[in-house]
Amino acid sequence: MIAFKNRDIISIKDFSRQDVEYILRIAKEMEHNKAKYKELLKGDVVTLVFFESSTRTRLSTYMAAQNLGATIQPFLYSDGTSAIKGETLSDTLMMLKKYGATVVAIRHPLEGSAQWAADVLDVPVVNCGDGAHEHPTQTLLDLYTINKEKGKLDGLSITFVGDLKYGRTVHSLVLAFTKFENVEFVFVSPNVLKLPSYIKEMLDEKKIVYTETEKLEEGVDSDVLYMTRIQEERFGDKAEYEHVRKAYSLKPEHLLNPNIKVMHPLPRNKRAIEIDPSVDALPQACYMGQAENGVYVRMALLGLVSGKLGDGEEYKPKVNVEGEFEFKEIKWKDRERKKGGYLVWEMESGTAVDHLKPNTATKIKDLLGLPENVTCTIGVNLPSGKQSYKDLLKIWGYQLNQEQMQKVALFSPNATINLISEDVLRKTKVVLPKVLTGMVVCDKPHCISNPKHYEFVPSKFMVDGERFICHYCGRKKVNGVL
Amino acid sequence: MIAFKNRDIISIKDFSRQDVEYILRIAKEMEHNKAKYKELLKGDVVTLVFFESSTRTRLSTYMAAQNLGATIQPFLYSDGTSAIKGETLSDTLMMLKKYGATVVAIRHPLEGSAQWAADVLDVPVVNCGDGAHEHPTQTLLDLYTINKEKGKLDGLSITFVGDLKYGRTVHSLVLAFTKFENVEFVFVSPNVLKLPSYIKEMLDEKKIVYTETEKLEEGVDSDVLYMTRIQEERFGDKAEYEHVRKAYSLKPEHLLNPNIKVMHPLPRNKRAIEIDPSVDALPQACYMGQAENGVYVRMALLGLVSGKLGDGEEYKPKVNVEGEFEFKEIKWKDRERKKGGYLVWEMESGTAVDHLKPNTATKIKDLLGLPENVTCTIGVNLPSGKQSYKDLLKIWGYQLNQEQMQKVALFSPNATINLISEDVLRKTKVVLPKVLTGMVVCDKPHCISNPKHYEFVPSKFMVDGERFICHYCGRKKVNGVL
Amino acid sequence: MIAFKNRDIISIKDFSRQDVEYILRIAKEMEHNKAKYKELLKGDVVTLVFFESSTRTRLSTYMAAQNLGATIQPFLYSDGTSAIKGETLSDTLMMLKKYGATVVAIRHPLEGSAQWAADVLDVPVVNCGDGAHEHPTQTLLDLYTINKEKGKLDGLSITFVGDLKYGRTVHSLVLAFTKFENVEFVFVSPNVLKLPSYIKEMLDEKKIVYTETEKLEEGVDSDVLYMTRIQEERFGDKAEYEHVRKAYSLKPEHLLNPNIKVMHPLPRNKRAIEIDPSVDALPQACYMGQAENGVYVRMALLGLVSGKLGDGEEYKPKVNVEGEFEFKEIKWKDRERKKGGYLVWEMESGTAVDHLKPNTATKIKDLLGLPENVTCTIGVNLPSGKQSYKDLLKIWGYQLNQEQMQKVALFSPNATINLISEDVLRKTKVVLPKVLTGMVVCDKPHCISNPKHYEFVPSKFMVDGERFICHYCGRKKVNGVL
Repeated sequence: MIAFKNRDIISIKDFSRQDVEYILRIAKEMEHNKAKYKELLKGDVVTLVFFESSTRTRLSTYMAAQNLGATIQPFLYSDGTSAIKGETLSDTLMMLKKYGATVVAIRHPLEGSAQWAADVLDVPVVNCGDGAHEHPTQTLLDLYTINKEKGKLDGLSITFVGDLKYGRTVHSLVLAFTKFENVEFVFVSPNVLKLPSYIKEMLDEKKIVYTETEKLEEGVDSDVLYMTRIQEERFGDKAEYEHVRKAYSLKPEHLLNPNIKVMHPLPRNKRAIEIDPSVDALPQACYMGQAENGVYVRMALLGLVSGKLGDGEEYKPKVNVEGEFEFKEIKWKDRERKKGGYLVWEMESGTAVDHLKPNTATKIKDLLGLPENVTCTIGVNLPSGKQSYKDLLKIWGYQLNQEQMQKVALFSPNATINLISEDVLRKTKVVLPKVLTGMVVCDKPHCISNPKHYEFVPSKFMVDGERFICHYCGRKKVNGVL
Repeated sequence: MIAFKNRDIISIKDFSRQDVEYILRIAKEMEHNKAKYKELLKGDVVTLVFFESSTRTRLSTYMAAQNLGATIQPFLYSDGTSAIKGETLSDTLMMLKKYGATVVAIRHPLEGSAQWAADVLDVPVVNCGDGAHEHPTQTLLDLYTINKEKGKLDGLSITFVGDLKYGRTVHSLVLAFTKFENVEFVFVSPNVLKLPSYIKEMLDEKKIVYTETEKLEEGVDSDVLYMTRIQEERFGDKAEYEHVRKAYSLKPEHLLNPNIKVMHPLPRNKRAIEIDPSVDALPQACYMGQAENGVYVRMALLGLVSGKLGDGEEYKPKVNVEGEFEFKEIKWKDRERKKGGYLVWEMESGTAVDHLKPNTATKIKDLLGLPENVTCTIGVNLPSGKQSYKDLLKIWGYQLNQEQMQKVALFSPNATINLISEDVLRKTKVVLPKVLTGMVVCDKPHCISNPKHYEFVPSKFMVDGERFICHYCGRKKVNGVL
Repeated sequence: MIAFKNRDIISIKDFSRQDVEYILRIAKEMEHNKAKYKELLKGDVVTLVFFESSTRTRLSTYMAAQNLGATIQPFLYSDGTSAIKGETLSDTLMMLKKYGATVVAIRHPLEGSAQWAADVLDVPVVNCGDGAHEHPTQTLLDLYTINKEKGKLDGLSITFVGDLKYGRTVHSLVLAFTKFENVEFVFVSPNVLKLPSYIKEMLDEKKIVYTETEKLEEGVDSDVLYMTRIQEERFGDKAEYEHVRKAYSLKPEHLLNPNIKVMHPLPRNKRAIEIDPSVDALPQACYMGQAENGVYVRMALLGLVSGKLGDGEEYKPKVNVEGEFEFKEIKWKDRERKKGGYLVWEMESGTAVDHLKPNTATKIKDLLGLPENVTCTIGVNLPSGKQSYKDLLKIWGYQLNQEQMQKVALFSPNATINLISEDVLRKTKVVLPKVLTGMVVCDKPHCISNPKHYEFVPSKFMVDGERFICHYCGRKKVNGVL
C-alpha cells in the first residue's frame, strides 16, 4: 500500500516506478469492476476548474467523477465566468473550496498553476494541464495503455513520430519510461521539430539507447508507434510541410508488423490526417482504446487522492530542509584581538562580509535592507591572494540575520561572513537555503509566479547546486547570473 | 413558524425583521446539519436561469441545490442559447416551467425581470440579481455573516468603503439594517462616489446616526468593515483614481482593532487590490467565509420556498385593494333641477367633469376613449372661486365608467365627477386606484416593462400618494407630470 | 410489441403508422406515470452532442434523460470545445462512446450527420436535427400533441401558416400525416414562401385534398392551426414583409372556432409576433403544452431505444440486397465459335461490353481501373438496328468483375456484358446494385458525405429505379446525368 490520500497529482516526475505501478493496478481494477465503485465518491465534490478549452481531458475527468458517484462542481471558462478574469486564481480556488470542493481538477494556461493551486488548497489537486508544462494524467493513461497492450513496461522499444520539439505529451512519456528498464526509443521527426537536446542529454546520461531519423519507415519495427500532430504553423516553408505531412501519414502499408501498437493522444487533425482512417479497423490501432483508458486512470486517481481507496493513509510530501550555516567560533583573547582579529576588522562589533565577488559589495549592501544610520565601509576590488580580487563590506555595530546572509549567498556564493562581538568571532561560509522564497523573481513569461500576471504568488525556487529551479514552472536559473 | 411556501424572493424590502431572522435561523441549521438535508429537494427541479455572467451567485445556488438533492435544470446564456434573444422572457420561463421547473432562480440584466418572472410563473422565483436593481440573496448572506461573526444584528457600527454611489450591495445592506436597532454607519468613499442622498434622507428620517468621510482611517473602529470594489471607469481624472485606490487598499496596519470584521462581496480586482492579500490570514478577515455562507443561505431559501421546510403553509401576499369612489347622491326634485342642478349642467343625462386643471380638458377628453358621435362641450380657463381657474368637460348622454374616471384622476387629481341621470346626480372626487395597470408606461431605459424591450409586460404602478412606483423597476413617477 | 432496442431515430420517414402509434402510447404512459420511470435509465449514459445552438430540443432531451435517472454526458459546442472543429465527427463520436455513451442524441449542421453517427456507432442515435434535413422528435411531439388535443390522428383538417417553403417542421409533419387517413390540409403562406412542389405532387399522388391560399382567414375552420415563424430575410421587398407580418399575426378575433387547436414549434419572435400574447390565455392555445409534450416523447424514445422499455427485442433494419447479375451461358461448340460466337468477338477470351450509349465507351474504359497493358478495342457510334447507334468496348484477355460491371451500369444502364472464355460465353444485362458505395460522390454542399467537409464519410446511394438517393442527405441524383 502506498499513501495517496490528499496527494497532489502535479507532475509525472513526482512519481516513482512503484507509484506508477500502483496507480495502473487500481486503474485496471476500475476498468474490470467499474460497477463496484459507482458510489465510491458519494458525498465528495469533484471540482472541474477549466480555464482553457479542453474536450477529452475535461469530459473523461467528468465521466470518471460521475462513474464514482461524486457531485460535480463545474467551473468552466465558457460558463459565463469571463468576469473572473479580474480575480486572482487563489481567490477563485478559495471560493470553490468554500462552496464544497473536496478534490480539484484544474487546467490553466499558466505554468505552475496546478502547483500553486496545491499550495493554496488543503484539498488534493489533479493537474489537467498547466500551459506547456505538465499533464500527468495523459502520461499515466499512455502508460496504462501500453502496459495493457504489451503486458509490460520494461524492455520495450517505442517510436515517437511527429512534433517532438513542442509535444509535451512526448516529453513526459519519454521521461516516464526512464523509470523502467531496457527501453529503446526511435524519434521520427522533421529536422525542425527534433527532440530538445536536454532530453537527449538526459537519455545519454542514463545510457538509454535511441535513434533519431526523419523516416517513418525506420520506426515501424518497434513495440509501440506513438503518433502525434504536426502543426502547419511550425513551418516557414509550406512545401516542406506538405512533404512532412505526406511522409507521416500512417497507412495500412506501414503496418506489416503485427505486434506494433499504434497510439495517438488525439484529436487527429482531419485536414492533415496523421493516421489515415483506413488504419482504424486494423488490430494494431489502439488510439480509441487509449482515450477510453483515460476514464479508468482518472477514476483511479480520484479514488486515491480522495482517500476513498488505498489504505487511507495521508500522503506526506518530503519537506525541504533549510540550509544550515556552520559557524566556526573563535574566542577573542587580548593577544588575538590585537594581532589578527579585532585589529584586522577594526570593529568591536558588527559584520564583515569578506570574499565578495568584485564589484558586488554596493549592490549587495543595498539589497540587505539594513536599518537606516548603520555605518558601513566598503572595499572594492581589493587584492585577494595571487592575481585575484574581492570586495569587502563592513557593517558597524550590526549583525546580519539568516535571511540577510542567504541574500549574500545569492549574489556571491563564495563569500564568508564574520560576525564580530566583544567576546567572539563567528565565521562561516555563506550557504543558500534549499528553498528560496520571495528572494528571486521568476521572469519566465508564462510562469504563474511572474508578477506581471498579478497572481500574488510568492516566488519560490528549489536550490540544486548552482541552479535554482522554479517551484512553479520548473524553469532554471543559474546562481550568480540573476 | 412563518409561511414561506411558494413565496417569491424578489427584494430585501419585502422581508420583515422576523422574516430575516427566520431565514438566518434556517441557514444556520443548514450549515451545522448539512448532511441531514441532502435529499430534502429530491424530486424538485431547481432551474438556473442566468442571462448574465455570474460566477459566485450561480455556483453557490447550484451547489445549494445539489446539497439538497434537487435536479438542476440549467439555462445559461453561455449554453448556446443565443437564439433565444428573439424570444420574450415570459415564453422562455413558461417553457422552463413546462419542462419541469419547481423553483426558478433568475439573473437577468433588466430591472424588474425577477418580479415579472414571479408574476408569470406559479412556482417560486428567487431573484439572483435583476440589473442594478435588487440582489436579496447577497444581502441575506451578508446579514448571516455579520450575525455569525458578531452574534447579533442590533447595536452594531458598520463602515462601508468604496463605491457607495453605484454599489447595489451597499444600498441593500444599509436598507436591511434599518430593520434593526441602534445601528450606526460610517460611509467612506471618494467625493464622486458618495452614498445617494435619497438613502441619507431615509436614514435622517429614521434618526439613524451616520458619518461621511473620505478617510479609511475613520472607519476602522467599527464592528464591521465592508469593503467594495471601485471601478476605474468612474473617474475622469486618473490621478484621482490612483489616489483613491491607494487610500482604500486595506492592509494589516489598518487592522489594529481586533474585533472588527472585514467583509467584501468579492470578487476582488487583482489589479486594484482593495484588500491586500496579506490581510487574508488575519483573524479579522471573513470575506472567504462570507462566500461560503452564501451556500447555506441559498439552501435555506430553496428549502423554504419549495415548501419542504417550515410548516408548509403557503405564503399569501398582501393584495392591493382597488381605490373606491365615494359618490354623494343627490335626488333631483323639480325645483332643484330647475334651480341649481339640472339647470346648471344643462343636461338631462351625461357626465360633467368639473374642477379640471386649467388647459387639460381637451387632452383628457382625447384619452377617455369615448364612443364616436358623443357630444362634448368644453370650458377652458373658467374662473373658479377667487383668483383661480379650472377647465370643465361636459359629455352629453354618456356616463364615464370606473377606468375612465381613474384616467381623469391621473391628469387632474383634484377633479370632481358629476354623473347625471334623470332622477339623480351622483357626485364624487376622482380617486386613483392603488394599482395602475396598463394606464401609464414606464420609460426607464432598463425597466423590463418599457415597451422598447418587446417583453410584452403590461405596465403596473403602485400608487403612493402623489407618487407612482413601478411594480418592476421600483422607479418613481410623480402624478400630474407624466 | 414492436422491436425498438438499438433502433436509430433518424427520420420520420422510417416509421410506420404502427411505430408512431406505439411511440405515442409510451409517451402517454410517461406523461401519466412519470414517477414510475425515474430510475429506468439508471446506469445508462445519454450523451448530448450539440454542435449547434439549441434551447428547446437540448433542454427537453436533457430533462427527459434526467427524469429517467440516466447519467448525462454533455458535449456542447459552447463548452469550450472549439478545438474539436479540426476533428472528424466520427472521431468525436468514437471518443464519446469510449467514455461511456449508451445513447447518443445529436444535433449537427450537416445533413446526414445523424445517419452517419448511426453508421459509426453501435449504440442507438437520436437525431435532434441535422441541418435543414430531418428533426423526427419534433414531428413526433407534434403528433403527440394533436392526438392528445383531438383524440385521433385520422380524419383531421390541418392548416399550416407561415414559411411553408423552408420550414422543415411543416414538411415533416405533412409527410407524417400521409400515414393517416382522410386528412385535409390548408396551406397559408405568402406567394414567395409556398410549399415546395415535390410535396404537393406527393399529396396529389396519394389523392390527399389540400388548399393553398394567402389568407389566414381561410384556415381558421380547421381542427388544427399550425403557425410558424416567417423570417424577414426571406423578403426582398420590406413592404411585402410588413404586409405578411400583419396578416399572419394571430389574434383572438381569428379564433371564433372553439374547437381549433393552435400550435407553434416555438420560439416566437418577439419583434414579429406571429401569435399575439393575448391568444396565450385562450383555451385553443396549446403551444406551451406542445413544448411540454416534447419531454414525454423524448422520454419514450430514450426508454425504447435503450431497450429498457418494450419487449427488449433488438430492432433489425431491413438490409438492402445487392443486385444480382443473371447470366445466360452459351457453351461454345466448334461450329458456333466459328459462326456467331468466337468469330464475332474475335477474342479467345476477354470481355465485350456491348450496347453502350454512344460516345461513352472511352470514358467508361477509363473508369474501370483496368490493369496496365490490357489490350482494348473500341467502336464508337456503330450502327445498331434501325436508326440507332451504340458504342462497343472489347477488353482482350480480361474478365470484368462485379464492381466493374456495376460501374458500366452507372453510365450506360442498357449495356450488355459478354464474358468470353474458351468454353463458354456468359452474357448478361448490366444491373445496378441496390446500394452504391464509394462509386458516386454527393456534391450537395451541406451533405456530410461531400468530401469538402473532410469527414471521411464513404459516399452511399440507394438505387431507386433511375434515381440514386443519398443515404445521408436524402437528395437525389438521376442515373446517366452524373
